[in-house]
Amino acid sequence: MQSPDASRKVTVAVIPGDGIGTEVMDPTLRILEEVGSRHGLQFAWQHHDWSCEHYTRTGRMMPEDGLDQLAQADQILLGAVGYPGVPDHVSLWGLLIPIRRTFRQYINLRPVKLMPGIESPLRLRDGQDIDFVVVRENNEGEYSEVGGRMYRGTPEEFAVQESVFTRRGVERAARYALELADSRGGGLASATKSNGIVHTMPFWDQVVHETAKDFPGVHVRDYHIDALSALFVLDPGRFDVVVASNLFGDILTDLGAAIIGSIGIAPSGNLNPEGEFPSMFEPVHGSAPDIAGQGIANPLGQIWAASMMLDHLGHERAGAEVLAAVEATLVAGVKTPDLGGTATTTEVADAVLAHLTT
Amino acid sequence: MQSPDASRKVTVAVIPGDGIGTEVMDPTLRILEEVGSRHGLQFAWQHHDWSCEHYTRTGRMMPEDGLDQLAQADQILLGAVGYPGVPDHVSLWGLLIPIRRTFRQYINLRPVKLMPGIESPLRLRDGQDIDFVVVRENNEGEYSEVGGRMYRGTPEEFAVQESVFTRRGVERAARYALELADSRGGGLASATKSNGIVHTMPFWDQVVHETAKDFPGVHVRDYHIDALSALFVLDPGRFDVVVASNLFGDILTDLGAAIIGSIGIAPSGNLNPEGEFPSMFEPVHGSAPDIAGQGIANPLGQIWAASMMLDHLGHERAGAEVLAAVEATLVAGVKTPDLGGTATTTEVADAVLAHLTT
Ligand SMILES: CC(C)[C@H](C(=O)O)[C@@H](O)C(=O)O
Ligand SMILES: CC(C)[C@H](C(=O)O)[C@@H](O)C(=O)O
Repeated sequence: MQSPDASRKVTVAVIPGDGIGTEVMDPTLRILEEVGSRHGLQFAWQHHDWSCEHYTRTGRMMPEDGLDQLAQADQILLGAVGYPGVPDHVSLWGLLIPIRRTFRQYINLRPVKLMPGIESPLRLRDGQDIDFVVVRENNEGEYSEVGGRMYRGTPEEFAVQESVFTRRGVERAARYALELADSRGGGLASATKSNGIVHTMPFWDQVVHETAKDFPGVHVRDYHIDALSALFVLDPGRFDVVVASNLFGDILTDLGAAIIGSIGIAPSGNLNPEGEFPSMFEPVHGSAPDIAGQGIANPLGQIWAASMMLDHLGHERAGAEVLAAVEATLVAGVKTPDLGGTATTTEVADAVLAHLTT
Repeated sequence: MQSPDASRKVTVAVIPGDGIGTEVMDPTLRILEEVGSRHGLQFAWQHHDWSCEHYTRTGRMMPEDGLDQLAQADQILLGAVGYPGVPDHVSLWGLLIPIRRTFRQYINLRPVKLMPGIESPLRLRDGQDIDFVVVRENNEGEYSEVGGRMYRGTPEEFAVQESVFTRRGVERAARYALELADSRGGGLASATKSNGIVHTMPFWDQVVHETAKDFPGVHVRDYHIDALSALFVLDPGRFDVVVASNLFGDILTDLGAAIIGSIGIAPSGNLNPEGEFPSMFEPVHGSAPDIAGQGIANPLGQIWAASMMLDHLGHERAGAEVLAAVEATLVAGVKTPDLGGTATTTEVADAVLAHLTT
């Protein structure tokens, strides 16, 4: 988190990407400008057309000095990348993953909050609410570069993938989650599989619990990933902050998006908590080529991600206003088809804007 | 699947294990004897007290020649192992995992079927049903012995875990799942994460699709594990057979148990499909020390597992009768507390027996 500095513009690198990524970005920038103008916050946008479309034109997802260009920005807003025909490993290793790693965005913060006006697919017990945050380790773990194949094309062929967990990597993720749990007050659930089957997870547990000694007020409880996934469905109300490795966090946050009723509204912050590097904010949803071009993409995931950016910039009041306008829009029933409504992307964004200015 | 042979008894090694494992086993054996007597099927039970309790007495989960003893049996019925104070790696590597691997039980078959009389925690759309099967690879993948730690106790400490996928291992799991999908007719969903982040999963995909060429009638669709978990909640009715690696299958089947309303009734078959070695049947639930000794454990997971054993023995009619008696019991509302009822373990088992004999 950085302290606000009213004296200069905040430079934001804007990468709409592909498909619906390009449709949800413009309305989000309008909203940021509106809320910014009320909070003495000015933005300088750096637009980048980096995408799969860019790749098919140039053979690269972004220019060779793309990361250097991004390093000049204060923050990054990403829409979504991915397009049929461009292999995932190109679009991901060519843009998303290098950004997450180069800028040490080692925290992927994903709120799982059932919004008013949205029905969960779960039959919740009376008074049960879904409102927690998943802190996903975002740089190492199961997503390592180490691995490969041998004896290609023969019956003896095999593939290996190394999971790599470092003390520094686990400790900083645990510390971030513990601080958040300390401020929220509801305890920390740690996702694991420590029954001695997977060698890395007892190490994860040990580092989490060692780090937790600095937070005597936080109750930490370990859950096996299989049981934890079941509890997201059976008893989501019990969670406040969940900390998870890269892959476990990936699974848990899609499951989290499901139980709050739509992948179209879930946001995600790839954070470099120290602020040495830009952080990146993106919706959880992808480029959705199936609905691209129809003007019906839900902009709320991108808008919620922008509200997380405001929080990260230290403008929590502005962030809260955007989120309140999102809630008011949902309560008013202005919803895109993924939420059962009939509104267009523009109508939803206009409703958010209208709620901001009233 | 083996063809029935009426001329001899079926030898079943019985390992109740710990906690509620010991409470649900006896009623299950009574039910097997009853249904067996109606189908010309006789059982010889080989009782083993191998467990964490055995470990605290002897320092071993099972005797040194335990696997040799089990190899004499036709099939294995397992309750649950695990007890506070005995580390998981002892109870698992000392019994469950060596059995799964030594006897090449490379398929873990887990039906995910919403039973009549049970309410799903999901708000299902009208007419939507949950009735699919997860085929989990059970011998390799993310659960490999390869891995460890370096620089213990220093700031540089790290842990690694190797995932190992072999062509033979993936191919035989895929083939089993494809055969099942072919007979059920509803297509195959393959759990993956093949976007080039995890090296092993593109290999998994390739072997699954190569194997699928032998099954032109089966529609195979890949799903990323994160999206797949979300779809178990958002649209479970679309699945018929799901094939997954060891860890992905572990997560998906607990999630599957959650959406069918209780981990207490979900069963699991650890299959050696060729019948060279005994297969092992167990409930998905654990030893549940918190409710052990109260006589309220749900026996239906163990009973359903026994019905899967009957199927595997080639006695599908007997297996179907047991399952029908389980359904009748649930419809009659005879349920243990985990399902919202007030019946005891014995009352539920007696109701199943009564439905069998009428
Ligand atoms: C696209 C993919 C590499 C990515 C991930 O697994 O991290 C996505 O699923 C996410 O959660 O941001
Ligand atoms: C106890 C544990 C090792 C086991 C597994 O992960 O295989 C269990 O969760 C299961 O699903 O049978």
